[in-house]
Amino acid sequence: MKKIITVGREFGSGGRELGRRLAEALGVAYYDKEIIVEIAKRTELSEQYVNNIVENKPLVSYPIHVGVSFNTGNFAPVQQKNNIYYEQEQILKEMAEKAPCVIVGRCADHILREFDPFRIFVYSDLETKMRRCRSKGIGEEEISDKDLKKYIQRVDKNRAEYYEFYTGKKWGEKLNYDLCINTTGTDIKMIASVLAKML
Amino acid sequence: MKKIITVGREFGSGGRELGRRLAEALGVAYYDKEIIVEIAKRTELSEQYVNNIVENKPLVSYPIHVGVSFNTGNFAPVQQKNNIYYEQEQILKEMAEKAPCVIVGRCADHILREFDPFRIFVYSDLETKMRRCRSKGIGEEEISDKDLKKYIQRVDKNRAEYYEFYTGKKWGEKLNYDLCINTTGTDIKMIASVLAKML
Repeated sequence: MKKIITVGREFGSGGRELGRRLAEALGVAYYDKEIIVEIAKRTELSEQYVNNIVENKPLVSYPIHVGVSFNTGNFAPVQQKNNIYYEQEQILKEMAEKAPCVIVGRCADHILREFDPFRIFVYSDLETKMRRCRSKGIGEEEISDKDLKKYIQRVDKNRAEYYEFYTGKKWGEKLNYDLCINTTGTDIKMIASVLAKML
Repeated sequence: MKKIITVGREFGSGGRELGRRLAEALGVAYYDKEIIVEIAKRTELSEQYVNNIVENKPLVSYPIHVGVSFNTGNFAPVQQKNNIYYEQEQILKEMAEKAPCVIVGRCADHILREFDPFRIFVYSDLETKMRRCRSKGIGEEEISDKDLKKYIQRVDKNRAEYYEFYTGKKWGEKLNYDLCINTTGTDIKMIASVLAKML
């Protein structure tokens, strides 16, 4: 079995649930928000603030994966975002070295590439994602279908930009993953159980 | 279990082997070239000729999936290609009605969409595809790496155009499949066995 499993996912596709169930079924550690908490502790920023930075696209438009050093001068938010990314990179590597685990999001497939992780990407059609968001209480009645759709697309756009910025690769592009799973019309519990047997 | 499993695949990715092994493991019928033979029998064209038509991109550039009738006049090759596609469509549907099966290629995921098939797409990186082609005796020593690469890319381009022409959808686009499997660095026998258990 591969020690490290990474899960990239479209917003509302159930990727996080799949990751959590998979970790449970395999009896290994599971990380997503926990990483952020850890980062927050280290950098002494509030969890909410860090979350916001990590979930949103980086402000500058040149990729950092090319490995050049650059001067962000007094432009604090950019520096802060990059600091958080590097903190996150360190923590992910420490975790991966410690024990087998499932990691959802956070460019883990790229950051942990030297660990040869099994890389999953979870996606579904927009209707499924909207239903899922509603069922999870995101939006409830206050938000129209049109606005919910926009919200989902914006989150995915931010994730894509964040991923591309830090990895130089296209988010959701098949070749970056070992397995891409369409959760449209499927039971995530069942998928997790099958995957656990496979892995 | 879903009765019909369709396998789309990049050339050299091992999709056909995966389909065959999957059918064996499930104890269901397997089709790819057999369909062509059947078409050849019906239309009384030689198998080689039909193969050539099906593998290559259609000559006309308007999609037929929109369902309008059109006049190809005396332009026999186009009419012949379309006839073969419709023959193929009929045969696939007859087969799907008869018994559970695995079908590789031939736009089966689209043609049999009313049967709610489990749709797999198999892909891998170019190096893996080149190695696979060499190991299967395609090219042997007579063809340079550069030419083999070009050949693989041309076949895939033709498949993409053929699929797009007849289905109006993008070949290899994740949302058109339930599962996308990267065969880079994996054992196809193992994948087939796991998939069989899952399905």
